[in-house]
Amino acid sequence: MNAKVQVQTQFELIQDNLAEIIGEKELLEKLESGKTLKVYWGTSPTGKPHIGYFLPLIKIAQLVKAGCEVTILFADLHAYLDAMKTTWELLELRTKYYEILIKQILTNLQVDLSKIKFIKGSDYQLTKDYTIDVYKFMSCITVDAAQKGGAEVVKQSDNPALSGLAYPLLQVLDEIYLEADIELGGQDQRKIFMLSKDHIHKLGYKSPIYLMNPMIPSITAKLSQDNQGNQDTKQNIQPDQVQKYIDQVTKLKDKNLSWDNFIKITNKIGSDLMDKSIGKISSNKMSSSDTNSKIEFTEDSASIRKKISKAFAEPKNSTNTLFLFLKYVIFPINKLKNQSDFIIEREEKYGGNVQYTNQESIKDDYEQDKLTPQDLKLGISNWLINFLEPIKNAFNTDELKDLVKQAYPSE
Amino acid sequence: MNAKVQVQTQFELIQDNLAEIIGEKELLEKLESGKTLKVYWGTSPTGKPHIGYFLPLIKIAQLVKAGCEVTILFADLHAYLDAMKTTWELLELRTKYYEILIKQILTNLQVDLSKIKFIKGSDYQLTKDYTIDVYKFMSCITVDAAQKGGAEVVKQSDNPALSGLAYPLLQVLDEIYLEADIELGGQDQRKIFMLSKDHIHKLGYKSPIYLMNPMIPSITAKLSQDNQGNQDTKQNIQPDQVQKYIDQVTKLKDKNLSWDNFIKITNKIGSDLMDKSIGKISSNKMSSSDTNSKIEFTEDSASIRKKISKAFAEPKNSTNTLFLFLKYVIFPINKLKNQSDFIIEREEKYGGNVQYTNQESIKDDYEQDKLTPQDLKLGISNWLINFLEPIKNAFNTDELKDLVKQAYPSE
Repeated sequence: MNAKVQVQTQFELIQDNLAEIIGEKELLEKLESGKTLKVYWGTSPTGKPHIGYFLPLIKIAQLVKAGCEVTILFADLHAYLDAMKTTWELLELRTKYYEILIKQILTNLQVDLSKIKFIKGSDYQLTKDYTIDVYKFMSCITVDAAQKGGAEVVKQSDNPALSGLAYPLLQVLDEIYLEADIELGGQDQRKIFMLSKDHIHKLGYKSPIYLMNPMIPSITAKLSQDNQGNQDTKQNIQPDQVQKYIDQVTKLKDKNLSWDNFIKITNKIGSDLMDKSIGKISSNKMSSSDTNSKIEFTEDSASIRKKISKAFAEPKNSTNTLFLFLKYVIFPINKLKNQSDFIIEREEKYGGNVQYTNQESIKDDYEQDKLTPQDLKLGISNWLINFLEPIKNAFNTDELKDLVKQAYPSE
Repeated sequence: MNAKVQVQTQFELIQDNLAEIIGEKELLEKLESGKTLKVYWGTSPTGKPHIGYFLPLIKIAQLVKAGCEVTILFADLHAYLDAMKTTWELLELRTKYYEILIKQILTNLQVDLSKIKFIKGSDYQLTKDYTIDVYKFMSCITVDAAQKGGAEVVKQSDNPALSGLAYPLLQVLDEIYLEADIELGGQDQRKIFMLSKDHIHKLGYKSPIYLMNPMIPSITAKLSQDNQGNQDTKQNIQPDQVQKYIDQVTKLKDKNLSWDNFIKITNKIGSDLMDKSIGKISSNKMSSSDTNSKIEFTEDSASIRKKISKAFAEPKNSTNTLFLFLKYVIFPINKLKNQSDFIIEREEKYGGNVQYTNQESIKDDYEQDKLTPQDLKLGISNWLINFLEPIKNAFNTDELKDLVKQAYPSE
């Protein structure tokens, strides 16, 4: 394979199914240089990982296939601070669980594990150099900019904790301290990536290339064509809404409020009206903390079948999460494993088995009602249960059962 | 001296001329326990210290006399981050200058220097334990609360740097890491002290006792009876001000604003009105960065005479900074040095020398016009020049002249 063809092959693997690349030109240049590219992907060791993790893990498999080396960061310091009820001991156990699980999945995706490095945030985020850089970063970024950076990943509230403004800065510094050429993250990380691009040069550093995987919505979500799920605060306010605002402020006239409170209350009136008018941030994305919206990697087969059977899917309308799962999970994994066929094992009376080599033909059949939602759900359930089989088996030892019990004592 | 009398003597020295004590009962209990109390006072090694530093330094002298041990913190990390143009090398030199100068002043106040410990923030603020505590603190405090804490000491702007929200937390943690029973600070630190009292228990720590010295206004300031100089946001908003607010919001109706901007702008309208209505934070306090408002400890005599001659003072009206200087600086220092008399060396033709043992009699003479503003300024200038003499002499070596030149190259 000549160099040009090789770069093209690498690039195709890297960009496959991504929502966005920032720094595409630079990526091509780096590939052309022949240098081994270092990738960083981070996750916080909290709840048990769910199948939403397929997307970054598939991308990691593709990146390794494209010749990259990947550092997986377990952001234990963040997790510790995020929910201060979690002890370091528990976090240690969860980090261990995450590492074993992720290794199992990657092995199942035929990844060469020697190309993957695991690291914990607490291994370097508390060193003197790193800490000085955090303070420096804080000195040259405004409160507003930091808030904007974390807007989609930090829990938002009327009165957020100060730490929420600091975390995005740490994530940006991680790019530097892990010497990443590339950072991989979900689309919800975009604002943090922009924070890096806008500000990190002030500390004398340079942002890496960013790869963003799309976010898979909850399997129970009803999809619209434009399923962003985010609050669009750029939407214009209408004169009648301003009037509503004024009406409410007018009522404050005789309330004997302090200036302090007046400003707080008017602020609240504004945000409440905005929320009513354009809708709260919808929580369509799969969440580790909502058990009904997610399927865990080690979930038992009956439960997987039950959850998938409840997934939203109308006959003939292929705008649903199941098709996203085909596109972003099943076919890419089949390709990684050199298994091109997706089989729906249907009883003879319903038409018998049917076999697909690409999602387009599934979509065609579905839209013509040759394939029902039940058929599709059956096929996807079987595929998933089959894929997870070796992973669940690996966890079926006394040692790992113990680990899970200790890491997640309340489950 | 019996124990009770001793505690009373200690307490009188400690509370003398303070604006406020938080934890008076605890202070008495600790004094009664006979334990040696540890005090912490911090300063940022930036511009050359001015005579406003007399107040905390006199208090430190009194505290040592009362049997306390004092740690003086040079907050070099803060200084470094506050103005990122300052290099560590320059800060090192300034810290050295501060330490030598403060030792000279304290020696002149007859303080036993073995009771004073000097420490730099960078000596411990970048350790792992400290850094974890900073992040923990950030996790359990809201952005609003942190902002409030720093409101009077951190430079305020429409769009402040994030570091301004972090500094107050570091100061609070310094209380803990320096194992202080007592923190000494200017009245402008009150909100940081309250931040500690309201939140530090969440980290399992306990706030110290707080001693607050009053702030000496600039010698050129015209004093009012209530010269707090602080913005009182607790003041009530009036119906006509609410109407003004509404009038301005009404104008936004047809502006095609996004919700984002609408909320930002209404916020700004509120704060602007508040500022207009209750006054911006006045900058009467002596500042290291305004050379006309301050007198440095090593300033030459002619310049001291000139600045004091310009001080605001009306005949017969004793509400002026000069009387504050008598009350908070001259008489306390005379007492520390066992020199009870304050002498005004007046020419014979103007009535000849006059000698006072307390400020009340000066005030009486001044209000009866037996003592003119010129007389008083002469007396104060002479006293100050005389006090500073040995300090200036100490700095009159080649080595220290060199240090000053290097530490303040642009002066």
